[in-house]
Amino acid sequence: MNDTKLQLPSSEWVDQFFQFEHVDGSLAQLETPVPLIDLDIVVKNLVRWQAHCDFHKIANRPHIKTHKLVGMAKLQLALGAKGICVQKLGEAEVMADAGIGDQLLTFNVVGVAKLARLAALMRRIDISVVADSVAVVEGLAQAAKLSGRTLHVLVECDTGAGRNGVQTPAAALALAQHINTMPGLQFAGLMTYPPAFKRADIAEFIADTKLLLAKAGLQCARVSSGGSRDLWSNEGLSDITEYRVGTYIYNDRSQVASGAFTFDECAETVLTTVVSRPTDDRAIVDAGSKALTSDLSPMPGYGIIRSLNDAPLYQLNEEHGYLDLSASPTKPNVGDMLRVTMNHVCPVNNLFDKVIFVRGKKILGAVKVDARGKVQ
Amino acid sequence: MNDTKLQLPSSEWVDQFFQFEHVDGSLAQLETPVPLIDLDIVVKNLVRWQAHCDFHKIANRPHIKTHKLVGMAKLQLALGAKGICVQKLGEAEVMADAGIGDQLLTFNVVGVAKLARLAALMRRIDISVVADSVAVVEGLAQAAKLSGRTLHVLVECDTGAGRNGVQTPAAALALAQHINTMPGLQFAGLMTYPPAFKRADIAEFIADTKLLLAKAGLQCARVSSGGSRDLWSNEGLSDITEYRVGTYIYNDRSQVASGAFTFDECAETVLTTVVSRPTDDRAIVDAGSKALTSDLSPMPGYGIIRSLNDAPLYQLNEEHGYLDLSASPTKPNVGDMLRVTMNHVCPVNNLFDKVIFVRGKKILGAVKVDARGKVQ
Repeated sequence: MNDTKLQLPSSEWVDQFFQFEHVDGSLAQLETPVPLIDLDIVVKNLVRWQAHCDFHKIANRPHIKTHKLVGMAKLQLALGAKGICVQKLGEAEVMADAGIGDQLLTFNVVGVAKLARLAALMRRIDISVVADSVAVVEGLAQAAKLSGRTLHVLVECDTGAGRNGVQTPAAALALAQHINTMPGLQFAGLMTYPPAFKRADIAEFIADTKLLLAKAGLQCARVSSGGSRDLWSNEGLSDITEYRVGTYIYNDRSQVASGAFTFDECAETVLTTVVSRPTDDRAIVDAGSKALTSDLSPMPGYGIIRSLNDAPLYQLNEEHGYLDLSASPTKPNVGDMLRVTMNHVCPVNNLFDKVIFVRGKKILGAVKVDARGKVQ
Repeated sequence: MNDTKLQLPSSEWVDQFFQFEHVDGSLAQLETPVPLIDLDIVVKNLVRWQAHCDFHKIANRPHIKTHKLVGMAKLQLALGAKGICVQKLGEAEVMADAGIGDQLLTFNVVGVAKLARLAALMRRIDISVVADSVAVVEGLAQAAKLSGRTLHVLVECDTGAGRNGVQTPAAALALAQHINTMPGLQFAGLMTYPPAFKRADIAEFIADTKLLLAKAGLQCARVSSGGSRDLWSNEGLSDITEYRVGTYIYNDRSQVASGAFTFDECAETVLTTVVSRPTDDRAIVDAGSKALTSDLSPMPGYGIIRSLNDAPLYQLNEEHGYLDLSASPTKPNVGDMLRVTMNHVCPVNNLFDKVIFVRGKKILGAVKVDARGKVQ
């Protein structure tokens, strides 16, 4: 894809997706710590990835766990996403309340209360789910019965990431067959969260499974893959029908380290204030682990200040960030504001009730983080 | 102190401090992940520490950053705490709204907006603050002027922790003298967040500073120290007039590792559900970094399951916890509930809008986390 050919929508069209709360004053007058999200960078990231998916004829199903914003999900859909991906029922409910009807929930739904919530969602929206064991499938059948609808179930495959998922193509086939024996359930395809930069391994697992399914006479309508770090790779895409990616919308230091994006494509930073300068080489800022998380990703330090020669936050307490200025060309003073480029943006957005949208140095307004804290 | 001599208040008396929201069903019917707080263990921890402070004639000024609950702050005060400690203005405001009038804010207040908020608080409650530079002091003088009140300022000393604070006793004296030259400000003493298990070093810094202050004719009414890991140590207490500690109320794996508390004194766990059993030795639970934080503290793993021979959560994604069952005598099934003992409780309570209070296996109700997300 040649980025210069990307057609970007107008600011007016983009802004209609958000309910901006008025913020007094300029950037320099904001209270810190607070996340800043540059909407122009967001739009470029969204349009570029959508064009990539369109070019490869892969459905784009962005993960809303990164932004947790109804407006952003609707913008992603308006730009061409087929539907959204959610990780928890609480996220699905927030997005359903906002009228978003095509959702994939990529987390096993377990327990009576959660299955009842799933059944309620099934009556409202088109939601498909995943399973990687008979125990999970049995529960899903209860939800389907409760709802009176048919539930589409993708079999989650562990293609090397060592997280959830059936371990072999034969196990995937067996579970798919079991799903189709259950009233109210329909096997709908395969889902994997793959290890990055190992596309050949994934492709082999998926291809082998599809062969077994075909021999057994089972349709495999969807193959859903995902992951941010190697999202631009074209390798091993032949069997993939949809792709889930979350971080691409904002990006972060770990995305830059993986080579997927540049710092210019990082839309989100946390604005922080220097509150102490105890020594020549140390500054303490007002963003600690309750603003940045302790996510190492893993990388050295908990974030960097790009404007200070990538000065690292070498330690965090809950409310204190320890900044190493030894390689910084300038030494900020108490009261100076800095922007932290975080290691990992996704958990940061789960810490704040509101984020501030900007376009360059202009503040657009504050936006409520709709699905903050929806971990159930 | 002999714990068997501790006088514990009645459950009825304790319960009056909290507004419990009704929760349907038993523990096994709770939706996960969710924090559970055992109020009987909390009360024992509070009473024991208060008795220790009383015995040593040190004012107990608990840090509310750990629990962020108005009810818990009021319980601490009712059991004998002199006042509370807050780390951010947002926490101070929530506690002031609840009528808590004696507060120490141990974080430099910097910036026009924050100084205006401090001034507003000064008109409502008895709040003292800290400073470690002329720049911070100049701002505090503006707040005092705005409020029309006198602001008591403690000089923060870096006694070895390498965080905020003046670096030498001479610098502490100079700043104390500067504070007293500013209209509306009054030097009120010294404050330090010391490195654990180095009480002799702290004591020397404080004693040297007090000597310089005395020679210069400055009163040093308060010396505020803190820290959880060596809270029971009697060493180096002679100059300390008050102690700030937060984690002691709930405790966690890092507190046990430090020797300060036992697992029986850990009041808080996160209840989680097994959602996947991909291999014999791996379980995936529904508590990830958005429920437990990525805080390593630093220790191996992100938390343990005590009931499974301390099986460690060896990796977290945002919504997934990876549990190593290789040394576990029993292998939990999908749907089984487990309790995670966290590395560090404080940031966990900042992730949840509500926590569940229990007494043993009995659910008392859900309690709103009043100061959640108050990082500004």
